[in-house]
Amino acid sequence: MSRVHDPSKQNAVDMDKARSTASINVVDVRNFLNDGAARWRRREGIVGVLSTDPLFDKSKRPFQNRQQQFLRGEAISNRLYELKEIHKWTQEDMTIALSVMDEGLAISFEPVIDLQATPDLLSKYSALVANKGILGCYLQTELGHGSNVNKLETTATYLPQTQEFEIHSPTLTSTKWWIGALGKTATHGVIQAKLILPGGKDMGPHLFLIQLRSLGEFRLIVLRHSAAGRQRTTVSPRFDHVRIPKENMLSKFAGVTDSGEYVTPPHAKMSFSGLLYFRSKMVTNAGWLIAKGATVSIRYATVRRQGEIGPDGLERQTISYPSLHARIIPLLARAYVYIELGRALTKRVDDLAHGLSSGDMSQLAEMHVMTSGLKVLVSTTGIQDLETARRSMGGHGFSAFSGLGKLYADFVPAATYEGENFVLDQQVVRAALKTFRGLSPTKVPSLSITSLYLRHLLDKDSAPPSLDDQAWTQPTFAILLLEWRAAFLVQEIANTTSAPEPTAAHRASRAVTEAFVAGRVGELITGLDAALKSREAAVVRKVYLLYLLVTVESGLVDLFSFGLFPASREMQSRDATRGLRLAIADLCKDLLPEAIGLSDAFGFTDWELDSALGAYDGKVYEALWAKAQQEPLNETDVTEAYQTSIRPLLLRGQKLAKAKL
Amino acid sequence: MSRVHDPSKQNAVDMDKARSTASINVVDVRNFLNDGAARWRRREGIVGVLSTDPLFDKSKRPFQNRQQQFLRGEAISNRLYELKEIHKWTQEDMTIALSVMDEGLAISFEPVIDLQATPDLLSKYSALVANKGILGCYLQTELGHGSNVNKLETTATYLPQTQEFEIHSPTLTSTKWWIGALGKTATHGVIQAKLILPGGKDMGPHLFLIQLRSLGEFRLIVLRHSAAGRQRTTVSPRFDHVRIPKENMLSKFAGVTDSGEYVTPPHAKMSFSGLLYFRSKMVTNAGWLIAKGATVSIRYATVRRQGEIGPDGLERQTISYPSLHARIIPLLARAYVYIELGRALTKRVDDLAHGLSSGDMSQLAEMHVMTSGLKVLVSTTGIQDLETARRSMGGHGFSAFSGLGKLYADFVPAATYEGENFVLDQQVVRAALKTFRGLSPTKVPSLSITSLYLRHLLDKDSAPPSLDDQAWTQPTFAILLLEWRAAFLVQEIANTTSAPEPTAAHRASRAVTEAFVAGRVGELITGLDAALKSREAAVVRKVYLLYLLVTVESGLVDLFSFGLFPASREMQSRDATRGLRLAIADLCKDLLPEAIGLSDAFGFTDWELDSALGAYDGKVYEALWAKAQQEPLNETDVTEAYQTSIRPLLLRGQKLAKAKL
Repeated sequence: MSRVHDPSKQNAVDMDKARSTASINVVDVRNFLNDGAARWRRREGIVGVLSTDPLFDKSKRPFQNRQQQFLRGEAISNRLYELKEIHKWTQEDMTIALSVMDEGLAISFEPVIDLQATPDLLSKYSALVANKGILGCYLQTELGHGSNVNKLETTATYLPQTQEFEIHSPTLTSTKWWIGALGKTATHGVIQAKLILPGGKDMGPHLFLIQLRSLGEFRLIVLRHSAAGRQRTTVSPRFDHVRIPKENMLSKFAGVTDSGEYVTPPHAKMSFSGLLYFRSKMVTNAGWLIAKGATVSIRYATVRRQGEIGPDGLERQTISYPSLHARIIPLLARAYVYIELGRALTKRVDDLAHGLSSGDMSQLAEMHVMTSGLKVLVSTTGIQDLETARRSMGGHGFSAFSGLGKLYADFVPAATYEGENFVLDQQVVRAALKTFRGLSPTKVPSLSITSLYLRHLLDKDSAPPSLDDQAWTQPTFAILLLEWRAAFLVQEIANTTSAPEPTAAHRASRAVTEAFVAGRVGELITGLDAALKSREAAVVRKVYLLYLLVTVESGLVDLFSFGLFPASREMQSRDATRGLRLAIADLCKDLLPEAIGLSDAFGFTDWELDSALGAYDGKVYEALWAKAQQEPLNETDVTEAYQTSIRPLLLRGQKLAKAKL
Repeated sequence: MSRVHDPSKQNAVDMDKARSTASINVVDVRNFLNDGAARWRRREGIVGVLSTDPLFDKSKRPFQNRQQQFLRGEAISNRLYELKEIHKWTQEDMTIALSVMDEGLAISFEPVIDLQATPDLLSKYSALVANKGILGCYLQTELGHGSNVNKLETTATYLPQTQEFEIHSPTLTSTKWWIGALGKTATHGVIQAKLILPGGKDMGPHLFLIQLRSLGEFRLIVLRHSAAGRQRTTVSPRFDHVRIPKENMLSKFAGVTDSGEYVTPPHAKMSFSGLLYFRSKMVTNAGWLIAKGATVSIRYATVRRQGEIGPDGLERQTISYPSLHARIIPLLARAYVYIELGRALTKRVDDLAHGLSSGDMSQLAEMHVMTSGLKVLVSTTGIQDLETARRSMGGHGFSAFSGLGKLYADFVPAATYEGENFVLDQQVVRAALKTFRGLSPTKVPSLSITSLYLRHLLDKDSAPPSLDDQAWTQPTFAILLLEWRAAFLVQEIANTTSAPEPTAAHRASRAVTEAFVAGRVGELITGLDAALKSREAAVVRKVYLLYLLVTVESGLVDLFSFGLFPASREMQSRDATRGLRLAIADLCKDLLPEAIGLSDAFGFTDWELDSALGAYDGKVYEALWAKAQQEPLNETDVTEAYQTSIRPLLLRGQKLAKAKL
């Protein structure tokens, strides 16, 4: 018999070979994606510390229940701050540490306090908050109330006699919810509650700092203040006439005088700034998440062989099938775009936040719309991309050991938190309509970058670009198409006097946002020569162009519907989308030899990916085997279920079978 | 102060009101969906037994780890067969019992044995298998091999001297995988292995029955046969020259003589019949899963109030927003279609399976293609629909208490198991191309119902239907559009001499399958008057029409691209899809008062749905609260993590904060 071929030995050979085909300098591109060599080295150092610390080992995680996960999470939090002290990490180092972890640690209330507390309150608490001398949670969502904060039921009634606020939860639905395990961890909370002035006037939601647990014995204390003296043990607190001192109101922008007069804030939307901050971070985060999906799926498809026999006599590497690589190479493109776009955006929000503090409000509305639309776009496409990655990997993609199921489950709520996507769509469209209705030919110069797509409607001689042989090699062509699509969809809603069709807002919001992103991608392409050497710039330019083309592909219905994409009015026997689709296929094929290099450039370690299928060395089957050995069920041959359940089942069955013979 | 409005009290009021607006007789429609009143009563009785048995309680499930879930699953399996004996349930009753459970109990090897074992082997084992006197698993997938069974590495070498087969796993990648917890439960397995004849000839994969554990002590025995005498404890067995008697080959259709000659089967594809059976069941199962998503999301949207203030002075019920109900009412439509379509299909496969046994092969190829395409369609749309349902419910949709996350996670591997979707697409297209290439005008009468859409290409005078005012009220119009789309996409691939664009196969496969389903929906509509009274028939007709219109909507790119949907070649300022989208919106609005009735008609109990948000009485907030009380973390005030992790963290932080002041 012929010598047995061992597929698991082939894995590393295939990975080495694929790694050697990349023409780019991976280090250069890695530094580009990681905001420079210095920041990359900091990330590398921090990952080195975390990944070798036994507490941060992930191998038992898939087998743990909620309670075990919680205990592990608390141990990790403590160790993280211990490491901070040991290694003298700065606050920025801690931000990096948190960004490379995938432990779903609870969000702190730190940004809210920093932005909205008065200097007096800050001087008392900020050092404690920053050093975890107290632990905080953010109590906004209620059991019956999410998106519409104006309808929160919890009240904070000001009592001028004692200069206190009385926090009260009048109903079951006013129970604070979605604060997760923090109900077990937090000593303090920032609570959203309707401010009620003496006389009963409701001023809408405001923020208050409230102590939840004693620092001595760590017992729930908030309910002791109540008249009835009841105590409840729950992760979802309800407040029964709990009193807090007046100074605990986060009143940097809106306060109450001692006698109970409302001090008008300089502007009503000030409290959005925390939300804006989170949303802008979501773009970068989505980029890095998609990057993980891209890395794992590209690596696995490089070493997985399945189906037809290739020229080397073995089954073909699955990445060589166009129906597969045309699905996963575009993930690289979206990851590259979101990482770079998000970084620029976070910088804008930082600038804005500082502007805010000194009262500069000029860009708030524009930024709000932009981050709303972007939040919808990156959460929708990010969720899709992680699922695409997972499905590209066959059965093993659905194993806990692929790592992608966890990424997906952790990310999918992004469609809802920090603003429900369908609610945000409405905001984007409202703002676009307002700009549209104010359009006039003289206003073109004053259109902001978020509204620039509307300029096409002003010039009567302007026309959408015509498709020619070179069209799909030109970023400008795709950008113009996407801008015209946005302009027509907004105009469509504006011109509709009867009810709009139900998907109109979603379509228009998506189009407006994609037109904005396309414009920014155009800028990124222009900036490439300054950021990278020519070879790397040329490859990343293709990555960006691919982003634009797949975005056009995903908008084909709108493009056809408004006549922006050439289709015959007559029945025709050939597929009008073929040219675009072949252009995408060609770009993907072009990028195929670079795929491992482009994904290596994200710089993920095996610890960060926590995926047997995404193993850097390609030895996926050995990694799967090793992970399965961690399964607690494998610790014994005969399971304890044998005596309790399996044996009775077998004996009953054998008795019945005998009776039938 | 005004009396406090309590939203949780409003829930039941809203649900009662919505229930009373349905004009249909829910009992009639429920019997229709449940295959008649008699079968409904059996389901009702079985659900009654299971849901009141403490072992089948689901309240602790979200908090369990894998090991705890396994132990619970084994206890449930044992109890299920105990109940079978107590209540004298038939095999069909057991099928119903399994279908109403959502416990992910392991798939048995029973169908494979029934279909492929010889009468001799059956007489020895079938009573034991049916009564669980032995427990089986199906060992097909290997660590390195899934879709392509011809490349499985495990061998079964025939040894004429001893009349045995020697089962061997030559490599790491040949380890049998994806047999789940059955490695801990099964006493026997049916294994797929390459049959090697004396002289070394490889006959490809065949099936063998192999004992894995002793019935006395339940210890792994398969590896004792090996020369080395090693034993391994693992859920993923590898076989080291394990010998089994010749009679253990499942050789109803292909066998080996005593001397080692291969006995040619009557036809090579015989072993597909088990796969076909599973796939046909998937259509019905997908229908019932979507039905759960529809029921939960429609009920929650009925009682959830959020956003604008409505005429009753309260926030509007979310189901009243077109952007929301236009997303979830179509789920009802897909559920109704798949349940009825799947039932018809399973009947066809049953007929086929009986035909198979007596050698009737005429319909095998046709049925194979049909079930391949349908498997792709129902898994893809089912996964999407569950996700749509979950996202329609705001933050609570992502809670374990919504129930939909579990449904989604259990169903999403359906995109891969029983045939990877992208591989199946290729099969569908290959069969369609074969029929296309054999087309001639004289052959129209012989086109099977799976290929009937191709008739449009034969008649030179035939033309696609023209859009008029009545178009979207006519099922025929949508059906014709979908047929023409399929015909053009298949023709496009046939006429492409260079490489097809990478998504071509997927697009064509989807179009061919949707054309087939559309045709069947046309038949279902025709049959409604015989199946239901006029009022109910009229409402269900709208449900079916909605299915057709949303299918057209999802195929718009193809319809535009081939000029089947009217769009101007010139740039135009109005949305060409508006008419279709408004027709869908109108249908959804029409069906809105029936939505609770149509979903009640599925007949799910609260135990089956296991969703706080889908509570029959609408009291969702009380149900959420009750579920949260089951969280083990809520059993104590101060978590055990306090001493180990939280206290050290707080003390360190307080020390550092003090140092900074």
